[in-house]
Amino acid sequence: MPSQAPNLSQPPAPALPKLLESIRNKVQQYLGQGKVAQYIPALGKIDPRKFGMAVCTVDGVCTAVGDAHEAFSIQSISKVFTLTLALRSFPDELWSRCGREPSGSRFNSLVQLEHEQGVPRNPFINAGALVVADLLTTHGANARAHLLDFMRRLSGNAGVAFDSVVARSEADTGFRNAALANFMKSYGVIKGAVPQVLDTYFHQCALAMSCVDLAKAALFLANRGTQPGLVGEVLTPVQTRRVNALMLTCGLYDAVGEFAYDVGLPAKSGVGGGIVAVVPGRLSIAVWSPELGPEGNSVLGVAALQELVESTGWGIF
Amino acid sequence: MPSQAPNLSQPPAPALPKLLESIRNKVQQYLGQGKVAQYIPALGKIDPRKFGMAVCTVDGVCTAVGDAHEAFSIQSISKVFTLTLALRSFPDELWSRCGREPSGSRFNSLVQLEHEQGVPRNPFINAGALVVADLLTTHGANARAHLLDFMRRLSGNAGVAFDSVVARSEADTGFRNAALANFMKSYGVIKGAVPQVLDTYFHQCALAMSCVDLAKAALFLANRGTQPGLVGEVLTPVQTRRVNALMLTCGLYDAVGEFAYDVGLPAKSGVGGGIVAVVPGRLSIAVWSPELGPEGNSVLGVAALQELVESTGWGIF
Amino acid sequence: MPSQAPNLSQPPAPALPKLLESIRNKVQQYLGQGKVAQYIPALGKIDPRKFGMAVCTVDGVCTAVGDAHEAFSIQSISKVFTLTLALRSFPDELWSRCGREPSGSRFNSLVQLEHEQGVPRNPFINAGALVVADLLTTHGANARAHLLDFMRRLSGNAGVAFDSVVARSEADTGFRNAALANFMKSYGVIKGAVPQVLDTYFHQCALAMSCVDLAKAALFLANRGTQPGLVGEVLTPVQTRRVNALMLTCGLYDAVGEFAYDVGLPAKSGVGGGIVAVVPGRLSIAVWSPELGPEGNSVLGVAALQELVESTGWGIF
Amino acid sequence: MPSQAPNLSQPPAPALPKLLESIRNKVQQYLGQGKVAQYIPALGKIDPRKFGMAVCTVDGVCTAVGDAHEAFSIQSISKVFTLTLALRSFPDELWSRCGREPSGSRFNSLVQLEHEQGVPRNPFINAGALVVADLLTTHGANARAHLLDFMRRLSGNAGVAFDSVVARSEADTGFRNAALANFMKSYGVIKGAVPQVLDTYFHQCALAMSCVDLAKAALFLANRGTQPGLVGEVLTPVQTRRVNALMLTCGLYDAVGEFAYDVGLPAKSGVGGGIVAVVPGRLSIAVWSPELGPEGNSVLGVAALQELVESTGWGIF
Repeated sequence: MPSQAPNLSQPPAPALPKLLESIRNKVQQYLGQGKVAQYIPALGKIDPRKFGMAVCTVDGVCTAVGDAHEAFSIQSISKVFTLTLALRSFPDELWSRCGREPSGSRFNSLVQLEHEQGVPRNPFINAGALVVADLLTTHGANARAHLLDFMRRLSGNAGVAFDSVVARSEADTGFRNAALANFMKSYGVIKGAVPQVLDTYFHQCALAMSCVDLAKAALFLANRGTQPGLVGEVLTPVQTRRVNALMLTCGLYDAVGEFAYDVGLPAKSGVGGGIVAVVPGRLSIAVWSPELGPEGNSVLGVAALQELVESTGWGIF
Repeated sequence: MPSQAPNLSQPPAPALPKLLESIRNKVQQYLGQGKVAQYIPALGKIDPRKFGMAVCTVDGVCTAVGDAHEAFSIQSISKVFTLTLALRSFPDELWSRCGREPSGSRFNSLVQLEHEQGVPRNPFINAGALVVADLLTTHGANARAHLLDFMRRLSGNAGVAFDSVVARSEADTGFRNAALANFMKSYGVIKGAVPQVLDTYFHQCALAMSCVDLAKAALFLANRGTQPGLVGEVLTPVQTRRVNALMLTCGLYDAVGEFAYDVGLPAKSGVGGGIVAVVPGRLSIAVWSPELGPEGNSVLGVAALQELVESTGWGIF
Repeated sequence: MPSQAPNLSQPPAPALPKLLESIRNKVQQYLGQGKVAQYIPALGKIDPRKFGMAVCTVDGVCTAVGDAHEAFSIQSISKVFTLTLALRSFPDELWSRCGREPSGSRFNSLVQLEHEQGVPRNPFINAGALVVADLLTTHGANARAHLLDFMRRLSGNAGVAFDSVVARSEADTGFRNAALANFMKSYGVIKGAVPQVLDTYFHQCALAMSCVDLAKAALFLANRGTQPGLVGEVLTPVQTRRVNALMLTCGLYDAVGEFAYDVGLPAKSGVGGGIVAVVPGRLSIAVWSPELGPEGNSVLGVAALQELVESTGWGIF
Repeated sequence: MPSQAPNLSQPPAPALPKLLESIRNKVQQYLGQGKVAQYIPALGKIDPRKFGMAVCTVDGVCTAVGDAHEAFSIQSISKVFTLTLALRSFPDELWSRCGREPSGSRFNSLVQLEHEQGVPRNPFINAGALVVADLLTTHGANARAHLLDFMRRLSGNAGVAFDSVVARSEADTGFRNAALANFMKSYGVIKGAVPQVLDTYFHQCALAMSCVDLAKAALFLANRGTQPGLVGEVLTPVQTRRVNALMLTCGLYDAVGEFAYDVGLPAKSGVGGGIVAVVPGRLSIAVWSPELGPEGNSVLGVAALQELVESTGWGIF
């Protein structure tokens, strides 16, 4: 049997800052190929040329490039962290109301939900994230505050906050999410009051965090559930594996298959242009560039991750 | 940065035969939990207690246990190899007629196909495999002979053959597949004559191979596309990554998410009770036990792979 | 060419009271075969043995039997009258946002709606009735008051009122309708504020009217759009034909085909147990019995209409 | 109670030839608005200016205009007559394998069929007609000959025949129908051998008949099931009502609602450009003009029926 890790060619440690810088330059060529999300005004005003990338290794060293310290709207990336909270506290209830399989449908589709009696396929489509938000909302005194505290502790940044303008915009235009929540409520899959559940959900999407914040916050996923610098486990190793597997099979909207091939890392994207990815056992990555491809994933973000994996051999396939 | 493979604890080489033997014993407890596939008589007659497992490392060493030398009906596992043939010869045509994303629907559903104008989601659902069979059938002189020769060369076993009883049974009961093929033909997605395409498909499903044959045949997928002992590449490294990514995201019917979590390896199952899995860069695995769970995957097969990964840390998450 | 009421041979006037009495007796045998709607408490408390029937001829004579003077919750029967209001005032806007074809799906399904970009199939499924409610709500000062006034004038009964207990129950449990409304709002098919639209809708369903009220109110549909005793047309003859055609093809939930065969009259049912039917050119009918069959139509109500048609030959086929 | 033909004011007999001639002239204005069916070559070659219309009253008088004596491909109109044959001989078996409700889906959709376990919604969508063809094929010695004999007797024209060129074209391009038949076979809803069932179906669609033939053949539907000139009932009065109700609710593809409103008669159309309609108690009508609207119904045919009904008040609403 081979005595070394098979699929990783190891770049020398000092190479990482240089590598990120070179990736940043390389992916500039894709600028203009995507479109900044326009569905809420606050997102549409972002400078499309923003680009940030941060990598944190499990020994706690973080490398950042570009606008990696600038906060942006993490949107659906928040689903990874609310899932983590739900898994910590009420896993049985979660899995009795939410599946763990790819959906094959748009992230906000109601069709499958009707055929499957209101039980969403996985926690990363909107319906599933609303079930998670329902769990957090109905089981705790103050879901928003609890989530905010969790994100501050994970990122080590007490300045992490909700962008209230974005949150309000989400609420003003979130009819599809309101439809999903009411629909699941009609099946009894959502237990709490719909407006409160939506409030939690719209706020989690409006979390403003930087690449550095996000890479730090996701590090436990690369480290078998333990966050460097925090006492105790965030998740057990087995739960961590679950989250990573879900990210790989369900984390990239309708481009799961393409991303698994192009990049080959567990990851979760958001329409704010961010993507968080994990190299299990090794490091976490966050990348941000606002222009989105047709499936809603950051064009430069995907390209940067692909470059990173091709340069390092960190992909899992 | 860590200087070693993070997520693999390496068992000493001699441990493998022992390990497979211990796995074999351990999974016996699940006997009786699944059901042998009954949809064709030839499959229904199999002794449900059969169990075989084989592992081949990229340096060419194979370890086998139980009934690993007994041929069984590989069924949908054949889709990996016909996909490989199609990728070698007509990748562009393939991807213009077949997607690469999880389907979220039953392997033989027509619903999605109608909504997406006859283009199947991926090559591992039946519709996609029929498109692959169509490519092989219309582009070559003798698709069946070509496939058989390919499987013999990959496995190094000139005795690999079609089970003609199974092939005939498939044809006699394959109305759903005939529906799929005719449906895609009505959209122009299938170009050849439906009966010939079905003939290819029913024969590929009726390939009889042992665990040892299959583990050997799949070894190139663990070895960046190169088959030990064969001249030249079977697939390029990039194509190999594509097949592995497709196996992880689409290879286990409706249990893709569960399997990614439980096992965490690219794999493809068949209703004959076989599963082929790949540890990229390291080794290939084939396991066989006829009793199937509700999603159509071998109960003991999945359990054995899970045991193997938990004992070795070979999972990718 | 034709100079007379088209489609009837006239039973002698005195026969009608006797006929209704005999029908009432005859259908008692079906008591206990259906179930009173339970989805809101106010409906569930109704005495299942209630039975009323009223017939009004186009010359203004009304015949009533049983509990025909007792008000009940008209529920979806209200859709006929809100459609009438919308047709009077904004037909073009209506038909640009709502189809006129049978849906083939459950009255509250979201699936078709998603496949057809939020445009409901017809005004008698819930989604379509919500579009109608949206038109009435956004175009007038006070949709509820306007509708109430309309129903009072049509029925000649100033005591017609909303049942506020029922209206509140509808709102408390109307998550599926809230889902539909939010969903259409997300497509821009609903223009008004969702809570107001739902308020109109929940109130129209909570209209309390008797069989006599309803038969009177629907008489214009049997009289080419003119209501005996009111000045001017309620609808033009052509619009009236449209409503009648919609009732026949879409008025009885999932039992349109059965009802067309069993009864063969344009009709609209409600889960309160009422059914309004029309014999074009001749008379209107209202029948009420709370027990519902599996498709949500009054069991005794359908049986009574069938008896009536079989005794008189008034069916259209 | 009723002692007379129910639903008509009678135009003086001499008016009819003049009326048909005037209708024929009037609808010429719509020429060029539709498209001749192109899916099989034999249909595509028809002169689009052909127009025929025939009316037969229940007392046996037929009036014809234009190309009413020229045979054309009746296509889906045949579904009325195969349904009649099935209703005569095996009604119970028919309704256990086929529904009686509008489908809300394209005539050749597989989606609904999958959601409803292979049982078609009604006998006028293709799937339902294939079930009917299956019944005729498996229960009789020679379904084709039996149907041909039936059509000759009903029309009184021994020259009625299958157009073998059309039948062959149907078979060559009928992949969607082959998909439907195989799909239902996989559910056990179709019992016979698929190729034989398709052969029956493709031949029934290829029946060549003139407007006069068709109006005569459909006369029993206007006459409570009895065909003038034939001994015994074709259908019972109750069965006849069933066929008429099905035609009104399911006979015009996706334009059932529009047609019920525009024309208001039970009718069945075919992509050959023919439409058969019934004025219950009074007469049967056949009209033919090859140009089809987007829903697959003859543009001039629908317009002609609408003219006829507006001139005579024969509509049922």
